[in-house]
Amino acid sequence: MRGIKVCGTMADKLRTRGYGTNEGGCINLSYEEALYLSERDFGTFSFENLFKEAASKLQDFDIRFFVYRDLRQRGYVVSVEKDRYLARKSYRMHFYPMSENQKFDMDVANSKELPFALAIVDGDGDITYYMVNREEPRGSNYENFTLKEHIIAGSRVFLIDSPEELGTYGKRESKFAYLSNNEARYLTGDEKIKVDESVYEVYADLRNRHLVVKSGFKYGTHFRVYEKSLEEHSRYLVHVLSEPEDLQRLSRAVRVAHGVRKTLLLAKKKDGKVVYLSVRWIRP
Amino acid sequence: MRGIKVCGTMADKLRTRGYGTNEGGCINLSYEEALYLSERDFGTFSFENLFKEAASKLQDFDIRFFVYRDLRQRGYVVSVEKDRYLARKSYRMHFYPMSENQKFDMDVANSKELPFALAIVDGDGDITYYMVNREEPRGSNYENFTLKEHIIAGSRVFLIDSPEELGTYGKRESKFAYLSNNEARYLTGDEKIKVDESVYEVYADLRNRHLVVKSGFKYGTHFRVYEKSLEEHSRYLVHVLSEPEDLQRLSRAVRVAHGVRKTLLLAKKKDGKVVYLSVRWIRP
Repeated sequence: MRGIKVCGTMADKLRTRGYGTNEGGCINLSYEEALYLSERDFGTFSFENLFKEAASKLQDFDIRFFVYRDLRQRGYVVSVEKDRYLARKSYRMHFYPMSENQKFDMDVANSKELPFALAIVDGDGDITYYMVNREEPRGSNYENFTLKEHIIAGSRVFLIDSPEELGTYGKRESKFAYLSNNEARYLTGDEKIKVDESVYEVYADLRNRHLVVKSGFKYGTHFRVYEKSLEEHSRYLVHVLSEPEDLQRLSRAVRVAHGVRKTLLLAKKKDGKVVYLSVRWIRP
Repeated sequence: MRGIKVCGTMADKLRTRGYGTNEGGCINLSYEEALYLSERDFGTFSFENLFKEAASKLQDFDIRFFVYRDLRQRGYVVSVEKDRYLARKSYRMHFYPMSENQKFDMDVANSKELPFALAIVDGDGDITYYMVNREEPRGSNYENFTLKEHIIAGSRVFLIDSPEELGTYGKRESKFAYLSNNEARYLTGDEKIKVDESVYEVYADLRNRHLVVKSGFKYGTHFRVYEKSLEEHSRYLVHVLSEPEDLQRLSRAVRVAHGVRKTLLLAKKKDGKVVYLSVRWIRP
């Protein structure tokens, strides 16, 4: 049992403004709701006593209270659900309150109703909001090449002497051309070319979707992805998440993508299919 | 033994242009030097044979060759040393060729002659250059507070009822104020306040240097740091590196810092003292 029971006319008044869950003719307020109301001198609960009780009973109380309070202050009507808030204004969105010390798990995220928002509380109590959604990126690049003799050297593959046309693959210099190991493996299928399998699977899936895929190293991600050719700006930064990622590192990636107006896609193979989730910084 | 021996007038000619190491009256060219010259039709070595030999003998040959070649093309005179290049133009700088798959180790970096540059080759063969230097950040914030009764709740510390002046620490709301755990631990010394010890040590060191330290979560780092007060823009993003960091993740952090015109400092406690290294993106 958690929360505060309120009955009578006050319960009716609060219910119409979205507070509490019905319990007979009364309503049950969660701690975040009761504290939010008490902070605004609504009701007769003592802020201090309520605060101390909530702090002692709920381990993540500070996170929940900060997010609830911020959403209310932004004009949302907020219903408290188990591990999330349903917030309504001109639209409805589920917000998951999280601490900056938690991790982002692709499989967990993908099993939820999408889109949803993460509300991440940092050490200063500031909240950063991300919108997470499922994506199906598609491109319109239909190049096709066959490679002749190639030399495997370090982390790439070289072609010496009159290298053929390479299009959006690799790079040509005066006396040689070269391809990344992902590119060469994709074009030749040669399993002697070493790749990180989980990263390569995403590379191949993106190419199969007719997207143009180049290194994302400058942006600190695995790939930058173009829809048609290298003439245009790249549209996506794609990062392969083989295991849950620290939110701090995810924040770094979202910040980079936002700064260069690209969409960050997280990718992971699941049940034989690569799943893509976009993560965008939002101001709710 | 690696490399190509050149004697006679050709050796003299090459020597004056910074190629090779002396060996009697002759010079010994490293593979990257010989290939670079061969690509420009200087000398009589077969590019293809030389390339195949180098690729088979040196595991990181592609990385070394790309960086050497890029520096030469940028107009540097480049001497080949064991694991680095000494490049001279209007200034002298050591460049360490690295693959994007390697890690950045604070202790190794700090043991080298500073400043130096990293030349990181990505999957596409593009090279990103970072300048690494030792820093001693200093601020001019001389606030001092003592805290009375506090409530530990989740990942921060609350003060209820007439919270005292907090300055650049924490945040005050209508009926309560709060501090991050690092702030509260620093001000009270209360060891019941849970912190990540290696992160906290850097927090305390920065505050002891009279800097103002707030959360860097929005930038994907541990701290953003102001020299005097929160009125100005923060000058540093500080990231605590307890263990070697993937260059890909470091690249993400450098990119964020560059985008917001702040200096990225990596921090690690070593022999009882916190060491700070700045990492800046450069175009050599």
